[in-house]
Amino acid sequence: MTASQAELLAEVLAEIGARAAAEADRGRVADYIPELAAIDPSQFGLSVVLADGSQHSVGDAEVPFSIQSVSKVFALAIALGRLGDRLWSRVGREPSGLAFNSILQLEHEQGIPRNPFINAGAIVVTDAALAGHAPREYLGELLRFIRAAASDDDIHINDAVARSETETGHRNFALAHYMRSHGNLENAPELTLGAYFHQCAVEMTCTQLARAGRFLMGAPGMPRMVAPGRVRRINALMLTCGHYDGSGDFAYRVGLPGKSGVGGGILVIAPGRASIAVWSPGLNAQGNSKLGTEAVETLARRMGWSVFG
Amino acid sequence: MTASQAELLAEVLAEIGARAAAEADRGRVADYIPELAAIDPSQFGLSVVLADGSQHSVGDAEVPFSIQSVSKVFALAIALGRLGDRLWSRVGREPSGLAFNSILQLEHEQGIPRNPFINAGAIVVTDAALAGHAPREYLGELLRFIRAAASDDDIHINDAVARSETETGHRNFALAHYMRSHGNLENAPELTLGAYFHQCAVEMTCTQLARAGRFLMGAPGMPRMVAPGRVRRINALMLTCGHYDGSGDFAYRVGLPGKSGVGGGILVIAPGRASIAVWSPGLNAQGNSKLGTEAVETLARRMGWSVFG
Amino acid sequence: MTASQAELLAEVLAEIGARAAAEADRGRVADYIPELAAIDPSQFGLSVVLADGSQHSVGDAEVPFSIQSVSKVFALAIALGRLGDRLWSRVGREPSGLAFNSILQLEHEQGIPRNPFINAGAIVVTDAALAGHAPREYLGELLRFIRAAASDDDIHINDAVARSETETGHRNFALAHYMRSHGNLENAPELTLGAYFHQCAVEMTCTQLARAGRFLMGAPGMPRMVAPGRVRRINALMLTCGHYDGSGDFAYRVGLPGKSGVGGGILVIAPGRASIAVWSPGLNAQGNSKLGTEAVETLARRMGWSVFG
Amino acid sequence: MTASQAELLAEVLAEIGARAAAEADRGRVADYIPELAAIDPSQFGLSVVLADGSQHSVGDAEVPFSIQSVSKVFALAIALGRLGDRLWSRVGREPSGLAFNSILQLEHEQGIPRNPFINAGAIVVTDAALAGHAPREYLGELLRFIRAAASDDDIHINDAVARSETETGHRNFALAHYMRSHGNLENAPELTLGAYFHQCAVEMTCTQLARAGRFLMGAPGMPRMVAPGRVRRINALMLTCGHYDGSGDFAYRVGLPGKSGVGGGILVIAPGRASIAVWSPGLNAQGNSKLGTEAVETLARRMGWSVFG
Repeated sequence: MTASQAELLAEVLAEIGARAAAEADRGRVADYIPELAAIDPSQFGLSVVLADGSQHSVGDAEVPFSIQSVSKVFALAIALGRLGDRLWSRVGREPSGLAFNSILQLEHEQGIPRNPFINAGAIVVTDAALAGHAPREYLGELLRFIRAAASDDDIHINDAVARSETETGHRNFALAHYMRSHGNLENAPELTLGAYFHQCAVEMTCTQLARAGRFLMGAPGMPRMVAPGRVRRINALMLTCGHYDGSGDFAYRVGLPGKSGVGGGILVIAPGRASIAVWSPGLNAQGNSKLGTEAVETLARRMGWSVFG
Repeated sequence: MTASQAELLAEVLAEIGARAAAEADRGRVADYIPELAAIDPSQFGLSVVLADGSQHSVGDAEVPFSIQSVSKVFALAIALGRLGDRLWSRVGREPSGLAFNSILQLEHEQGIPRNPFINAGAIVVTDAALAGHAPREYLGELLRFIRAAASDDDIHINDAVARSETETGHRNFALAHYMRSHGNLENAPELTLGAYFHQCAVEMTCTQLARAGRFLMGAPGMPRMVAPGRVRRINALMLTCGHYDGSGDFAYRVGLPGKSGVGGGILVIAPGRASIAVWSPGLNAQGNSKLGTEAVETLARRMGWSVFG
Repeated sequence: MTASQAELLAEVLAEIGARAAAEADRGRVADYIPELAAIDPSQFGLSVVLADGSQHSVGDAEVPFSIQSVSKVFALAIALGRLGDRLWSRVGREPSGLAFNSILQLEHEQGIPRNPFINAGAIVVTDAALAGHAPREYLGELLRFIRAAASDDDIHINDAVARSETETGHRNFALAHYMRSHGNLENAPELTLGAYFHQCAVEMTCTQLARAGRFLMGAPGMPRMVAPGRVRRINALMLTCGHYDGSGDFAYRVGLPGKSGVGGGILVIAPGRASIAVWSPGLNAQGNSKLGTEAVETLARRMGWSVFG
Repeated sequence: MTASQAELLAEVLAEIGARAAAEADRGRVADYIPELAAIDPSQFGLSVVLADGSQHSVGDAEVPFSIQSVSKVFALAIALGRLGDRLWSRVGREPSGLAFNSILQLEHEQGIPRNPFINAGAIVVTDAALAGHAPREYLGELLRFIRAAASDDDIHINDAVARSETETGHRNFALAHYMRSHGNLENAPELTLGAYFHQCAVEMTCTQLARAGRFLMGAPGMPRMVAPGRVRRINALMLTCGHYDGSGDFAYRVGLPGKSGVGGGILVIAPGRASIAVWSPGLNAQGNSKLGTEAVETLARRMGWSVFG
């Protein structure tokens, strides 16, 4: 990164931070998980790791938040490591065209979820990643993976959030039982969902999450957790499927692979250039962080980071 | 392009050409349009224009074919030029999750097609591009646009193919009438579809199509038909929606924006690096050229052109 | 009919007429066909023909109205007469669970409409009834059938209404083209729909319609237009499918086979006992005459005419 | 019943019994519940109770079988007795147009099942019938209701079958959790389904079931378990919704209200005339007893019992 680019980044981050602080319409905090509904919506943080390893942050970048569906990226990396391409017999690679928790598509396609980033698909991925181990062992591996990726051992699961999801997660139980009825769940729904709810309850700060995303940058000197070909493919899936039924819009506006979570966090990758984590609890109509989406749109445009030229 | 890259490209093209010639399973030629059903399935052509302006081809790259849905890219560029972002009130930007000619989604979403690259969306785009002009005038503008993009005046519409579609295009008539019943078609279905069928019947060779795609490369010295921001967005739409319900798979395997047509052609863009046209009439299960998809997968992997790093 | 039953019927009709006149909430007149939108919503008529041949009426029973979808019953009788059970290879016999003009189901079931009383099914029935004849000949036969059934030659087609539907009937054109694309339409959509729109534009009074329904009563001395087994089956279809997605509710509340039209008319059969025609232009949420439905519910309950005991 | 009718019935029953014994194509025994899959498919029984109280049987009419979904009729009667019309805020009254265990419709209609006779609707009915009581109490009431209706105390629940369903009933768990996520289940899914699976596991013989159906005949001298108006309405629901997506066909062919179960039993009511129970384990494509359907079609036609004249 040249000095002028560093200056530009500093300027853009300052601008983004100021605009986020001033924004009146901050979206709606998810209310279906009681523990998330209580989060203060005024918060906003963003952190960027560049290819030279430097990290640049703004706002509440050190406040831990529930990464929720962003965890699906790490789970996918683990499941692919364990099963390789056999995973794709159980889950597709196409955008869903439906809400994140839709069960309708499963009926059309005989219990095979369309991709690993909608809930049904992520449940199958977790089920596959369990691979005969107890949820506790899998969750241990997941934390080791994330901690190694982030080079930070202070990353944990919030048990209260996990429990909260277990109690209210009837839609996910419906998805799991439905797939089980089609033979596409190896473990008992309770067991797979136990692992899944805990996986979603991992807590990280923006600075931790941006570092954890380095393994997807495809840049020299970054942690290499999976093979380069797999990095490209995970990025491709994030771009086409990472924002539920707002994936096309995110690609159109931001032009970068990303994965959002209902906790308001988004992990965004600028291949070869940057790993970006943004967080703001209020969501837009598609269930993605409103201010977070706007921030990375500005960042990508100003820095010229779109993969589309 | 360095000498070693030029050598690599020559080697890769030779390899692709040889493999295509030898391939036994060539997919199925589309049979619903009589004029297309008669095409010899043994043909294969590929042409690449690089950022330095040089062009490299292999196989039947000088044989004209019906570009069919690839024309949707040019129509979109024209409609965006005419209407700007107002176009997005009539058509969405999300992958469809359904077959290219599905009418089901229109019922769910009140006559608003999900994106400009499925048939319903492209019909709306053409309807919008007409903007009060006669089909003849619009088709003249379309040809002028394509010829200027390709720097080649010898590009024409095959009237026999257009007529053939008019006679058998009941599914497209159903889509058009359906959208008209929802107030999302300004012109009579016959009129818009007349323009649409002729637009699909444009004939080009691989070398012409690769040159016509240069305006989407975002590289200096290339024809500039639309603004850079719009180029990025058209590329984003091609990546998320360019291959119907095989878009996710194409992104996963190839990692580049592309738009396929039922005639067996695909236009693929490697932003900043190359414009690629490939053609082979046999289609895979998703309705995209089987050998064409395989060829660009190899090309992108060997040249390191994926946008995902 | 005993003297006391005659008295009861007179009393019930008077009560129904009085209540209809006083009713404030009369539903909404259909507005998608301009000619229908202009009808005075304050009108209400009802006429009953009993098994002894006597006819009893109340309200505007001599005002002609557009029978619209009630015509589907007569068209079905003609098509079954022509094709017999072969008709059922082109249209099903199951309730649709969807709106009267849904196209969604056609996609699920490959162009085969679920029953002859939704629009798609009725279009197929008319297409089959044409059987190689010109629309004019078919419409002549339809009028002869209805006139013979009603013993009344003064029944006609309102050309202005037919033309009005032709001009605005984009949804029906969509259905017809869609079925044609699946090979389930023998004639050009324009031709079949020309016949269909004219068929819907037959005008009758309540007294005429009640008499025209006598052939479905299955009572001695009534006009015998079709075989007894077929009468029972047409009645069964009217009960399960005669009110679009309100068929279950009509069966629950009224307990009699009936077929409604968007013009506000309903033909209801009490097998062995009565043929009933009711008309009031305002529709309920399911698109069936609001006051008409309420009137036959009262009539059936008070007279003990439910087929369910 | 006149002597000649009695003779005719005897003749028809003998004929039905003989034909059933000789039939080669007996349909397919349901295999998704292990306990049912083991049933001998060669069995066939039929029993008729007439308005004069006489009972006439043929074949294996004394062999107990699992009534499965036929139990939904008794559960509905109990739930209506407890809640009255308030029940209809939680479940609709329209045919479903989909398979018996479809979850798709629930997504379209926000967790409100279309009718009480598809699985989702029956689960809601059981949930409502529980009304704060323990499953054991509800099941006690259900058995008391059925025993009183049948005038026979020797009717029991097969615990092995109930357990078998509990273990394999993932689709039903999916439905229950889905409705719970929409707030349309008052009890924990495990609790409601515990009651539901046991309810389905009631075992009866044809002679017992025919007697248990007498309360729906609407004839003098029969057990009066619910009010006459409610009898008519339950019959209406059986006619429009009693055979899943084969309801229209059953109404067309048989012309009588009926409710089938996956165990191969069907309860059929000829209002004012007869209560009929038929059983044969092999199912047709719609999941209804193949020989059972054919038998009641013959019976209704020969006896002139269709409600449609």
